[in-house]
Amino acid sequence: MFESAEVGHRISREEYKQREPELRQALLQAQYRLLEQGNFPVIIIVDGVDGAGKGETVNLLNEWMDPRHIVTHAFGDPTDEEAQRPPMWRFWRSLPPKGRIGILFGSWYTNPIVNQVAGTAKRIALIQSIEEIRHFEQMLVTEGALVIKLWFHLSKDAQRKRLKELEKDPKTQWRVTDTDWDRFRAYDKFRKVSEYTLRETSTGDAPWHVIEGSDPHYRYLTAGTLLLEALERRLSIRQERRSSHGTPLLPSLDSRNILNTLDYSASMGKKEYESELEKLQGRLNLLTRDPRFAKKSLVVVFEGQDAAGKGGSIRRVTTALDARQFNIVPIAAPTDEERAHPYLWRFWRHLPRHNHVTIFDRSWYGRVLVERVEKFCTTADWMRAYIEINDFEEQLVRNNVIVVKFWLAITKDEQLKRFREREEVAYKNHKITPDDWRNRRKWTSYERAVCDMVERTSTEIAPWTLIPANDVEYARIMILRTLCEQVEGALRSRKKK
Amino acid sequence: MFESAEVGHRISREEYKQREPELRQALLQAQYRLLEQGNFPVIIIVDGVDGAGKGETVNLLNEWMDPRHIVTHAFGDPTDEEAQRPPMWRFWRSLPPKGRIGILFGSWYTNPIVNQVAGTAKRIALIQSIEEIRHFEQMLVTEGALVIKLWFHLSKDAQRKRLKELEKDPKTQWRVTDTDWDRFRAYDKFRKVSEYTLRETSTGDAPWHVIEGSDPHYRYLTAGTLLLEALERRLSIRQERRSSHGTPLLPSLDSRNILNTLDYSASMGKKEYESELEKLQGRLNLLTRDPRFAKKSLVVVFEGQDAAGKGGSIRRVTTALDARQFNIVPIAAPTDEERAHPYLWRFWRHLPRHNHVTIFDRSWYGRVLVERVEKFCTTADWMRAYIEINDFEEQLVRNNVIVVKFWLAITKDEQLKRFREREEVAYKNHKITPDDWRNRRKWTSYERAVCDMVERTSTEIAPWTLIPANDVEYARIMILRTLCEQVEGALRSRKKK
Repeated sequence: MFESAEVGHRISREEYKQREPELRQALLQAQYRLLEQGNFPVIIIVDGVDGAGKGETVNLLNEWMDPRHIVTHAFGDPTDEEAQRPPMWRFWRSLPPKGRIGILFGSWYTNPIVNQVAGTAKRIALIQSIEEIRHFEQMLVTEGALVIKLWFHLSKDAQRKRLKELEKDPKTQWRVTDTDWDRFRAYDKFRKVSEYTLRETSTGDAPWHVIEGSDPHYRYLTAGTLLLEALERRLSIRQERRSSHGTPLLPSLDSRNILNTLDYSASMGKKEYESELEKLQGRLNLLTRDPRFAKKSLVVVFEGQDAAGKGGSIRRVTTALDARQFNIVPIAAPTDEERAHPYLWRFWRHLPRHNHVTIFDRSWYGRVLVERVEKFCTTADWMRAYIEINDFEEQLVRNNVIVVKFWLAITKDEQLKRFREREEVAYKNHKITPDDWRNRRKWTSYERAVCDMVERTSTEIAPWTLIPANDVEYARIMILRTLCEQVEGALRSRKKK
Repeated sequence: MFESAEVGHRISREEYKQREPELRQALLQAQYRLLEQGNFPVIIIVDGVDGAGKGETVNLLNEWMDPRHIVTHAFGDPTDEEAQRPPMWRFWRSLPPKGRIGILFGSWYTNPIVNQVAGTAKRIALIQSIEEIRHFEQMLVTEGALVIKLWFHLSKDAQRKRLKELEKDPKTQWRVTDTDWDRFRAYDKFRKVSEYTLRETSTGDAPWHVIEGSDPHYRYLTAGTLLLEALERRLSIRQERRSSHGTPLLPSLDSRNILNTLDYSASMGKKEYESELEKLQGRLNLLTRDPRFAKKSLVVVFEGQDAAGKGGSIRRVTTALDARQFNIVPIAAPTDEERAHPYLWRFWRHLPRHNHVTIFDRSWYGRVLVERVEKFCTTADWMRAYIEINDFEEQLVRNNVIVVKFWLAITKDEQLKRFREREEVAYKNHKITPDDWRNRRKWTSYERAVCDMVERTSTEIAPWTLIPANDVEYARIMILRTLCEQVEGALRSRKKK
């Protein structure tokens, strides 16, 4: 990959002076068109060899364009906040919204490469990271992002020369640290690992561009021109709605399914309920104060038919918790800001830190439920959501998040009864809207979506628990019991990989 | 994944009798439309639990449709032929052409799952296989294939019951072997591994469908209906030409590149040439008779500008080899049959078996050279070709194929000289065509394509060697020497992973 960036590229000062103003103006224009159209984000990844001029180039891009619409992120050691979430959390946080440019310095490539070079990670870790990156970038591209990946390269000799030059000049001396020389000594290994990583992640939709870094004029013009051409081409393409290539999912032909084979007659007497409730709430409370929970967090997902009793169940859970420790996230239609980001962005932002609990009242499963049924997204979108969701939950579980998912199931008759009740009882009146009646008419479509969802996203690491909820008390007890058992299981088990 | 296939699905004989004729007719019609349109292949993957009725279902599909346009492949232990090629070779061989249906029994899923269950492969092997499968199926879908994946499932109890039933009936007794019972004892592990594999490979474009296998009527109708719906939807979609989302590649801004920085003045005297030639040919001949070569094979790729001397160089190589041992594959425009398959298919079919040499006179690099420059394929197509080619070569090298790649480079002046010579010399006249002159006018575009190609596909396991070939003798010697060195290196090194 690096041969072409070692032939001694250079551009004279005169040529640079002549070409720079035009490039600069074109870039600015493209940036404003991007802002106006506002239909895709631009993600520029800047990485490469130390001393190859990454920082200067990024500064110059900010100078050439309107820096108010560019966000530059550098990623050093993770902050406390970041260290308590899955590694990708900080990158999700820094994704630019549609219409904007985000420059990511280092990004998701740094750690996999550096850990491999330092020998602190095994080969398999690198292979896994590369696959995660490919999936992640594929998702970004499918969601419409323009992903530009620039690698600034120096040959070994050029890097040595550059470090010495910087050291000699009193004005730049401070920029060369012992770490830089340590890393220089690992040059060959670094080159090998990064060449491999670049090749494996240089996909057709998100290719790497290697830029020789020794001559500033050459690297500035090259980076700027690449950015310009990518922007202009992308601005000229009409957004395509890709049709789904996946084979269609089929509802079960004999009308037997996991929902209608549940036992809805299950119920529980008031007295048993009261005593069980108290016991289980106490047990849950103890669990969240368990020292082993200090390095874990808990995500609970509540989904279910309208009027299945999500609200009441959630309250029975939160009663058991310290208010400083939990957060309930009700999921309704996305905000403008959320709409300007990839689908999962709005869920990533609410992930709890260690020792905390986040309860999602409806969740990322909206895409394969309401968005699918109401056709708010394309078939291709919700079809790919299953594997994206599984990947997402896998990242959570692998990083000390306990994920518990409930589907509260009631029968159609029971729902009707509850709707009527709500209409009649004054203080429950706000809980029933025309939407509820409309959704009810799509009962079969929703049922089908739920069955597909459970089939495709109930995994050994984050299984769905289906709760027959015709009897409110029974449902609440089952929820609390499952929650306690799953948290206990997770605290007992060693870290899952 | 399997919950929905354990609820005891069944369809009564009456219902089956009523629905079957209609389904059957619709399937046959869809099959004929597919044949007529002839614009995509259908790949049906059938896998699952033993005794879940895979074989019967496949037989029935053949009965329902016109079996002349269906090819069914079962994959047992690899044949001699197959064992001497990379594992994917036999699956490439069995891909159906456009317009046809291929049913793959077992397929690329069997070995990764079975080896994991048997404990003969490490976890990392499964993870790598899964990624290879994802890339491979993504390629198939991008190339236009409809990929339908059916998994026939039985719960543990149902499998036990089924095996006992088969054993009891004298007519079916022979179908239950000790292996079946051995595999039954590994049911739980098998279930776990396959659930994981299915989930990780159930992408939006190629999702798995799990079918409960206990009731024949249910499984037949379900498999048939799935196939029908997938076919009908796909037949109704107009083929889309996806625009490239990748950032455009940039020619080097200072006009310095890896081709024009070569030393074209390198030359060699006649006498030195003769003596070197003999020595190197002898050395190469010995290498191909080396016992360590018995389990290896050699693929040599020759690419270069027109009139760069590929033909003469190839002859100097083959002179050193036993005629029974090598095969020269000249690559021109693809045949109809080749065009009906994914791009790399026509190269896979020519891979050498152990102890053999295949020389490609032009190669799979055509996609990123002539097809790119002449716009025979879309930008998206040649942009994704780089990573597909790298994956392909990685599979070769990991499976004992030595890959040596030459680019024969001449200057534009030298080419002109040779063209004129060819026109003048009668016996060389056939070697110069209007095409050659036409290509020459696109010199710069080709040069750019070559630089991008080398940058993106010269890897540590299959590097490009650029040979300055203005001096014919020098070039031939360099080629033979490189070939000897790379083969020696590969024979010395332990198996690469």
